[in-house]
Amino acid sequence: MTEQVLNYLKKHRKKQLNALYEFLSIPSVSTDSTYKEDVTKAATYVKDYLNDIGFDKAEVQATQGHPLVYGEWLGAGENAPTVLFYGHYDVQPADPLELWDSEPFRPEERGGRLYARGSSDDKGQVFMHLAVFEAFMKTEGKLPINVKVCIEGEEEIGSENLYEILNEKKEQFQADFALISDSGMVAEDQPTILYGLKGFTGLEFSLHGPVNDLHSGMYGGAVRNPAIAMAHVLASLKDENEVVQVKGFYDQVEPISQAERELIAEVPSEDYVRSTGIPETVSEQGYTAKEHTMARPTLEINGLYSGYQGEGTKTIIPATATAKITCRLVPGQEPDHIQDLVIKHLEAHTPKGVRIEVKKEPLSAKAYKVDPDHSLIKTAAESYTKAFGKETVYVRMGGSIPVVEWIDAIYQMPIVLLGFGTPNDRLHSPNESFPLDNFTKGMETLVHYWSSVRDSSI
Amino acid sequence: MTEQVLNYLKKHRKKQLNALYEFLSIPSVSTDSTYKEDVTKAATYVKDYLNDIGFDKAEVQATQGHPLVYGEWLGAGENAPTVLFYGHYDVQPADPLELWDSEPFRPEERGGRLYARGSSDDKGQVFMHLAVFEAFMKTEGKLPINVKVCIEGEEEIGSENLYEILNEKKEQFQADFALISDSGMVAEDQPTILYGLKGFTGLEFSLHGPVNDLHSGMYGGAVRNPAIAMAHVLASLKDENEVVQVKGFYDQVEPISQAERELIAEVPSEDYVRSTGIPETVSEQGYTAKEHTMARPTLEINGLYSGYQGEGTKTIIPATATAKITCRLVPGQEPDHIQDLVIKHLEAHTPKGVRIEVKKEPLSAKAYKVDPDHSLIKTAAESYTKAFGKETVYVRMGGSIPVVEWIDAIYQMPIVLLGFGTPNDRLHSPNESFPLDNFTKGMETLVHYWSSVRDSSI
Repeated sequence: MTEQVLNYLKKHRKKQLNALYEFLSIPSVSTDSTYKEDVTKAATYVKDYLNDIGFDKAEVQATQGHPLVYGEWLGAGENAPTVLFYGHYDVQPADPLELWDSEPFRPEERGGRLYARGSSDDKGQVFMHLAVFEAFMKTEGKLPINVKVCIEGEEEIGSENLYEILNEKKEQFQADFALISDSGMVAEDQPTILYGLKGFTGLEFSLHGPVNDLHSGMYGGAVRNPAIAMAHVLASLKDENEVVQVKGFYDQVEPISQAERELIAEVPSEDYVRSTGIPETVSEQGYTAKEHTMARPTLEINGLYSGYQGEGTKTIIPATATAKITCRLVPGQEPDHIQDLVIKHLEAHTPKGVRIEVKKEPLSAKAYKVDPDHSLIKTAAESYTKAFGKETVYVRMGGSIPVVEWIDAIYQMPIVLLGFGTPNDRLHSPNESFPLDNFTKGMETLVHYWSSVRDSSI
Repeated sequence: MTEQVLNYLKKHRKKQLNALYEFLSIPSVSTDSTYKEDVTKAATYVKDYLNDIGFDKAEVQATQGHPLVYGEWLGAGENAPTVLFYGHYDVQPADPLELWDSEPFRPEERGGRLYARGSSDDKGQVFMHLAVFEAFMKTEGKLPINVKVCIEGEEEIGSENLYEILNEKKEQFQADFALISDSGMVAEDQPTILYGLKGFTGLEFSLHGPVNDLHSGMYGGAVRNPAIAMAHVLASLKDENEVVQVKGFYDQVEPISQAERELIAEVPSEDYVRSTGIPETVSEQGYTAKEHTMARPTLEINGLYSGYQGEGTKTIIPATATAKITCRLVPGQEPDHIQDLVIKHLEAHTPKGVRIEVKKEPLSAKAYKVDPDHSLIKTAAESYTKAFGKETVYVRMGGSIPVVEWIDAIYQMPIVLLGFGTPNDRLHSPNESFPLDNFTKGMETLVHYWSSVRDSSI
């Protein structure tokens, strides 16, 4: 039966691409209030699409900010599984415009790629789902399983209202599992299942010395230099082997199993030297770069400043030095606990002669991980492989996706992260694009997946 | 005979104050080209004054920048000593104007102080010399010793052309010793001889990691963070006891003698906690704050920056971290050698995964020190005490005065640093002022000094 559905997609490809162009042409920039109406227009587009293909329900639901599209089709019956599909229809601003080779909101095909803001993140990927739902409805008259759709308009501004809405409307969003297509594959044409994300905690702290910058000749020798004190404090956080020295930092970290090490070893390696320009890769002692980026916690200085930053020399002792620190966390680590441990470490290592002031970053996230052997994950990997003709790799990612943590915390349902973006898509940058080949193969993956989930649940 | 001279100063005080007001009213701001004519006007003022009181020679000598005033009176004969008196007639800009309680270039007397830009730095002090020369000429018809006068107009812009001129016109400036009044006393009413200045060397260096800032989730664990590498490198420069860890840094340092320690102990202590707001004073192990600031070398970070400095959090690994470093040097330390040692240290401590780039600061200065027991210094101290009625203290200063190093290097003559400024004069700031009492006592000091130098040389 999937043949029929796949044929429908082939046959209507041109029409569907045109529909996608229309969707991408709406400048639904959530960060900029001048695009407020366009954001709503994009929401309406999604709602109309769901209505047109026969969803039971499709609504633009108001929030404190940009609206959310909710849709459902529950015709598969009570015994069939229900999926909550999450995506977002808002996009990043297109600036700087002069760096685009074509108009960001006038989609253009060049060299097998579709260029437009949102083509990969996330309108293109959302649209693939809509088109697949359409194909099932138009050929089989129904979807393989029950589907709830949640497409928000605030992802690019931190999903400001979503956490509250997910908490308030528990019945609406309740499902057996969630599926999100807002991530990428590790290489072009490499089926990739994301089974873990890191958590996050952060803080900023300052070391204060004199009230004002001082003349280094008059006061050098009497006053502790806050910038040097800062160097000592920061150097104490991590040794040269990239091992974090904060007491208790690793205590709750789940060790990486041998099986997982093998899974990670199978992921194609990024050539970090080539892609980032670093002289050489440096990772935590005892772990490969892939293991460290995917499955071990990190502590980074994101910003650092003190004293004079202009041209040439200014012979001062700075009044203050400030550093911004964030940690990426793995399963087992509690963000607030780790934040407290870091603060305790900083306070204990502040030398005499300066005074420490700490500002906690209020946002935090716990790490997320699903068992890569879970049947819903295995099935996704198989569907992926069927469409792309290549073994699927399993990856964990160093980044955080807040909605994943929220769905996990509120609904405790498994989450399948099935992404079709590629490393060359230039998300958030000029000339964002999406390979048209992935558009085709991604839809095929989804057709296989929904069918397999239906079949495996019979 | 000094009685007569002192009486002249008392009798003509009002007339001389008016002349000083006229001098201070010329906005000779050397940093701002809109004041170019005023700068020349101030030079002409000094030249005319010297001519009027009977100097043999007084010229406004052109330079590549602002002119220099050269004057001489050599009537004391070949057997009498010759002094080279250095000062500067240019001043700092007056901005921000709104913070002045009276017009910066309209001198005003309030509460025993004379308020005007340049009243202390250095027009006021230069004028005291002119007035004393006048008093000698008008009463005795001659000066006690031979005098050469060098008053420049570029001190506030780094004495850009002076080094070359001092080298070119060796015969013109040749003398037995130099005297400079462009410094201050350690407390109001505390006679202070400055017998040493620190030298100076500096550099800036960057640690480069990735070409661009990276996403800390995607790359944390594979890439050395340049800001953390920077913390390690900087922390290695100085230990928590404020001892510089650069190999060889102290090798050529002249130890402080017991006699000098006693001299330093007699200098009134600045209450650093009160004056700077630091929690407590921190100095090199084994040395007091006074010893360290005056007579031990220092290494300071003057500026430090890396990554994100805005509000809140940005989860990046910065591409680069940069630090600015300067050292204040003591006699024995060669600026270029110390700069090389520091660079070698930085290079040796740069961890793998980042690349170091060093920019040498081209300006440098050697430390200067004169024997505090030198008869010219002892005589100055006695003259000071006679005028102020208080024992003179001997200090070394952490700052550098380039002209002192240049005169020392080119002419190898002793330099007497006899300053009459006070810690409350607000040099370079709004409401610069000078105590009128010091104006009187300072001129008395000079009368005693010139007379004593004459007498002791007979």
